[in-house]
Amino acid sequence: MSKVGSFLRSKRKLILLAGVPGALLVPQMVSAQEGADAMEVATSAFTGVNFVWTLIAGFLVFFMQAGFALVEAGFARRRNTVNILAKNFMDFAIGGIAYWAFGFAIMFGGSAAASGLENGNDFFGTSGFFLAGEAGADDTALLWFFQMVFAATAATIVSGGMAERTRINAYLAYSFLISAIVYPVYGHWVWGGGWLSQLDLGSGALDFAGSGVVHAVGGISALIGAAMLGPRIGKFAKDGTPRTIPGHNMPLVVLGAFILFFGWFGFNPGSTLSGTDTHIAMIAVTTFLAGAAGAIVGFYYSFVRTGKPDVGLAVNGALAGLVAITAPCAFVSPGAALIIGAIGAGIMLASLSIVERVLKIDDPVGAFSVHGAAGIWGVLALGIFADGSYGDVTGLIAGDAGQLAAQVISVVALIGWTAVASGLTFLVIKYSIGLRVPKADELAGLDATEMGTDAYPEDESPESALAASA
Amino acid sequence: MSKVGSFLRSKRKLILLAGVPGALLVPQMVSAQEGADAMEVATSAFTGVNFVWTLIAGFLVFFMQAGFALVEAGFARRRNTVNILAKNFMDFAIGGIAYWAFGFAIMFGGSAAASGLENGNDFFGTSGFFLAGEAGADDTALLWFFQMVFAATAATIVSGGMAERTRINAYLAYSFLISAIVYPVYGHWVWGGGWLSQLDLGSGALDFAGSGVVHAVGGISALIGAAMLGPRIGKFAKDGTPRTIPGHNMPLVVLGAFILFFGWFGFNPGSTLSGTDTHIAMIAVTTFLAGAAGAIVGFYYSFVRTGKPDVGLAVNGALAGLVAITAPCAFVSPGAALIIGAIGAGIMLASLSIVERVLKIDDPVGAFSVHGAAGIWGVLALGIFADGSYGDVTGLIAGDAGQLAAQVISVVALIGWTAVASGLTFLVIKYSIGLRVPKADELAGLDATEMGTDAYPEDESPESALAASA
Amino acid sequence: MSKVGSFLRSKRKLILLAGVPGALLVPQMVSAQEGADAMEVATSAFTGVNFVWTLIAGFLVFFMQAGFALVEAGFARRRNTVNILAKNFMDFAIGGIAYWAFGFAIMFGGSAAASGLENGNDFFGTSGFFLAGEAGADDTALLWFFQMVFAATAATIVSGGMAERTRINAYLAYSFLISAIVYPVYGHWVWGGGWLSQLDLGSGALDFAGSGVVHAVGGISALIGAAMLGPRIGKFAKDGTPRTIPGHNMPLVVLGAFILFFGWFGFNPGSTLSGTDTHIAMIAVTTFLAGAAGAIVGFYYSFVRTGKPDVGLAVNGALAGLVAITAPCAFVSPGAALIIGAIGAGIMLASLSIVERVLKIDDPVGAFSVHGAAGIWGVLALGIFADGSYGDVTGLIAGDAGQLAAQVISVVALIGWTAVASGLTFLVIKYSIGLRVPKADELAGLDATEMGTDAYPEDESPESALAASA
Repeated sequence: MSKVGSFLRSKRKLILLAGVPGALLVPQMVSAQEGADAMEVATSAFTGVNFVWTLIAGFLVFFMQAGFALVEAGFARRRNTVNILAKNFMDFAIGGIAYWAFGFAIMFGGSAAASGLENGNDFFGTSGFFLAGEAGADDTALLWFFQMVFAATAATIVSGGMAERTRINAYLAYSFLISAIVYPVYGHWVWGGGWLSQLDLGSGALDFAGSGVVHAVGGISALIGAAMLGPRIGKFAKDGTPRTIPGHNMPLVVLGAFILFFGWFGFNPGSTLSGTDTHIAMIAVTTFLAGAAGAIVGFYYSFVRTGKPDVGLAVNGALAGLVAITAPCAFVSPGAALIIGAIGAGIMLASLSIVERVLKIDDPVGAFSVHGAAGIWGVLALGIFADGSYGDVTGLIAGDAGQLAAQVISVVALIGWTAVASGLTFLVIKYSIGLRVPKADELAGLDATEMGTDAYPEDESPESALAASA
Repeated sequence: MSKVGSFLRSKRKLILLAGVPGALLVPQMVSAQEGADAMEVATSAFTGVNFVWTLIAGFLVFFMQAGFALVEAGFARRRNTVNILAKNFMDFAIGGIAYWAFGFAIMFGGSAAASGLENGNDFFGTSGFFLAGEAGADDTALLWFFQMVFAATAATIVSGGMAERTRINAYLAYSFLISAIVYPVYGHWVWGGGWLSQLDLGSGALDFAGSGVVHAVGGISALIGAAMLGPRIGKFAKDGTPRTIPGHNMPLVVLGAFILFFGWFGFNPGSTLSGTDTHIAMIAVTTFLAGAAGAIVGFYYSFVRTGKPDVGLAVNGALAGLVAITAPCAFVSPGAALIIGAIGAGIMLASLSIVERVLKIDDPVGAFSVHGAAGIWGVLALGIFADGSYGDVTGLIAGDAGQLAAQVISVVALIGWTAVASGLTFLVIKYSIGLRVPKADELAGLDATEMGTDAYPEDESPESALAASA
Repeated sequence: MSKVGSFLRSKRKLILLAGVPGALLVPQMVSAQEGADAMEVATSAFTGVNFVWTLIAGFLVFFMQAGFALVEAGFARRRNTVNILAKNFMDFAIGGIAYWAFGFAIMFGGSAAASGLENGNDFFGTSGFFLAGEAGADDTALLWFFQMVFAATAATIVSGGMAERTRINAYLAYSFLISAIVYPVYGHWVWGGGWLSQLDLGSGALDFAGSGVVHAVGGISALIGAAMLGPRIGKFAKDGTPRTIPGHNMPLVVLGAFILFFGWFGFNPGSTLSGTDTHIAMIAVTTFLAGAAGAIVGFYYSFVRTGKPDVGLAVNGALAGLVAITAPCAFVSPGAALIIGAIGAGIMLASLSIVERVLKIDDPVGAFSVHGAAGIWGVLALGIFADGSYGDVTGLIAGDAGQLAAQVISVVALIGWTAVASGLTFLVIKYSIGLRVPKADELAGLDATEMGTDAYPEDESPESALAASA
């Protein structure tokens, strides 16, 4: 028997084992075996590679939720730890369901994006709600899953900027609304076939994996939320001088950063949505180099200034470098990626200072500086450094100003839309649920007051645990 | 030179680099290049996609071991932390070797499952021990690896229900026996071609990824183990009222839950054993929605009851939703998945109360409620919600009672077998090694008495560490 | 319309969504659809499987950096936690850039390894610096990424042996140099087509995934570094008796070990660089069994000796088993893998004792014993146990002494080169930057003195955090 026949026979057996009645899959297997239609087998393999790649990349992006949770919990004070963990655990659940019900349809309905989503316009989509009807096909499911984990990333970025003083129900209401409306609209403009993607400048506004669509939207929303909340008690001295409020657990921060870096290899290379596009390898390379360069800038910046390196800034530098390369990752060379990542970290550092010292806004984990400022830089960097090696996209250095012009317009639209939509959303929440916890609750810690629990119960009162066993 | 030739040439170079003498692989490469047999290349790619998908899914399931370890360690008290970590670290090592030696042969031998495993019967397999002989083929190795990580999952579930009072050697003996015998027998009935899979009702008993085969077997064993051990000292007041014994570290619990959710994307979609089956995308979608719905039910249940949300219940709700969707994940729509997950979390909550208040059994992490109760629900839910979209499997709502009947029989067999087999196993261990540590050891903590170490040595006596460096 | 056409149409849509102007990819898609060239589709799928597999395996290896960071942080004392985390976070960033600039070219330039790297010699490569020019092709990028994460692994192993007393800038300078020079030279000899791979004994020196190339190079460098630093204050009593200095956080150690084990499934099976090589399944099996056997040896060794099992030794046993199987993983049977892993753990245990009691070297995490001793064993084990099942490679047991002879020569060259190159590198650093922190800094802890921060700020002075919010 041929090698093919032998494999398919064992394949049939494998399918039997998975609990699926073999009968239903044998025919197509046998036909491939007997009919020997090479094109059919090749196409099935080709489709399979793309599905496998896109799904696994999506799983890695999902896992970034754990990274965000740990970075934010580590940078928070102990008495708010369970609260920030709960926000991060619930925002992807709530945001994912919001994206299933509404967000995906608004983002991709009408963009001819996937089977069954035919109607829509340049500003928002109007079909595919609840993945119902024809939107229930496997390829639409694939697209939904990959896009949902991106929406959840945009949502979870916000929690960091609003940490340690936000009501949990206000935050979760926002998570629902950003995933259902705020994120998908700008996403439609760039990725869903909307007006920005149709600009007659360069190749239209581009954002390969979401420096703008995901990170800047999340980062700007975080800044607006932080501004509307006001600073944490004690953050600014009476004369307005910002004070450092150290986090409570650096191993959580560093582990979270590793998980985020790991997940970014799904975020960027996975955004080809195609494992048969060999450029995925180069995207992994540019992603790595930008993140590494950012880490080095963050680490040595504090070393040069204070004589001691700061691992927190190394972490934020790596993340800023990764955020910055996210839009241009497919279009630039390794050397350019290094530069983009390093500049991204530099912009993050400058932004940290401006937010605290000029704007007097308290963004506990630097969510805006890492995701917003570096994200905007990433969108622009695409228009500067794209070298024509992928998709004939060329930027300023290659002599083409059109792409950069498209990117500038996209950034203006991004800032405008996010500021207005997030601002209104927070306003509605402020005057309904209320954004901020009472002062006494904030001082006592959100774990005691909002959650009724403690992150490390035995640290606070080891006797209580002993008493329980007495 | 053609693109094919160019790739294969570079492929040969890559192979050279991996330390394998190029000579051994060049011929087949060259033949593909020169002979231009499209069917051969297509088949190799097709087989490759399925191997890559199944292996990576298996790696994700392996990583769930870390998730279980962290959830259980976080829910345990500090003084038992190293003990529970050690149990989780060792049970997959011991269980994996047991499954290599015996379990796999009992589960799949005789089911024509893979090359060389031809003899067996409707109740247990009898060939393939130690992956020896023909069972050493690559496709059998693939199947073994994927099944082994599932067996290890069933084993590790038990440690949570028996936490904080079980002798480590008793637990590890049980890990060996559940992986070698208890798990594989029911697994043979459903997945190995045994009698339940042959029922003339619907498509025979089905369980796509193991709500029953893996989770309910583990959860029921945990309940029996917990019952035979008796409650931890202090768990019940003299009048039988249960008392809450808080865990010691919530960041570990939440990180563990994220890891489990991440791994579940290997568990469920990976159970196609095929990356060329595009339904893997829809399975990822149903899996996500069920877990998200479960998290929301757990989270808001306590909010409604007590005014404060409980992140521990959100975690267990998500896990219960994931357990519930595991059997029906391939056969139901996204909307049905949401309902199945939400009901799974509700059943988990009800079960928690029944186990503690009615049965008076102390299951420290809710292993039975999460894996057993929600797992049984998942097996039944398949017979209710299957909509014919995959493999023509239809349930009650689609008008077919036969599948549900098969599922009911499967649940009865599952409970019967697991109760008897686990009960006998624990009895043998109880009267040989002894199940429970002495009362004084339990009060002092298992880390000090069973392990001779401490999870956080400097917390207990920072002086000692300083002394060591003096 | 055919199924192929339908898929390609939706594929085009997916590409549109990713922000890439559809125009650039439609032509080739349409040609595949219309022209119906099965060989082209098959080749694209075949290439895609290999790219996807190698990249995802590389991502898993990258994630091992988190595992090393946690194991080392957990085994360190609290006052050095941020320092060791920072070293682990920065060494991959710095090492990765060093490997981009220099290391890759020295390792693979001239070995006809990838497009555009044609010149070089038997001792080191001389082309491909900065991935510039033709080295910027996708397949070279793929190879670079996979090799870079291996180089970063070799670098990060060193931090463990030198923990708790090394200047951070000295360590990071070493990270740069090992990744740029020390690691790539021996790597060239074995994997880059250098003189060891050309030995006329057996199939030339082999090392499938790097027991020698990665682990032993890292482990031997760690030993030399530890010896040149001298022991930590308090490690040895005045009479030379070693004292145990316990780590500060066992959950970090165990989680790190799980992450490492998980990542090893990228390390070993991924080293085929080919997802179409079905042997990846068997490599996953041998890798698992060796790690499991090592864990059991480590765990029960202390149980037999002291009556209490030691989870730290279980972790190191698992890692030693994994290190040992790394070279022979593709060439041996499951049973042989179990033996190799068990012996690897035994050698690690013996080495721990020799290093401390005979050599009087203080290697805080056992980096040499785990990676160096077990790594050397792995290289030799290949020459003993290879059974001809893969690539016709046969070892001593199969009656062929030639391969073992090649392995012995490789080990001698490995030890010689690493000792000389690492020794000289550390000497240069010692007399320029200085290797060791001042005594007062070591006693106060490196977090306070080198990093100016604290891993758990509120543990030390909860008042300060409260004060900040007053």
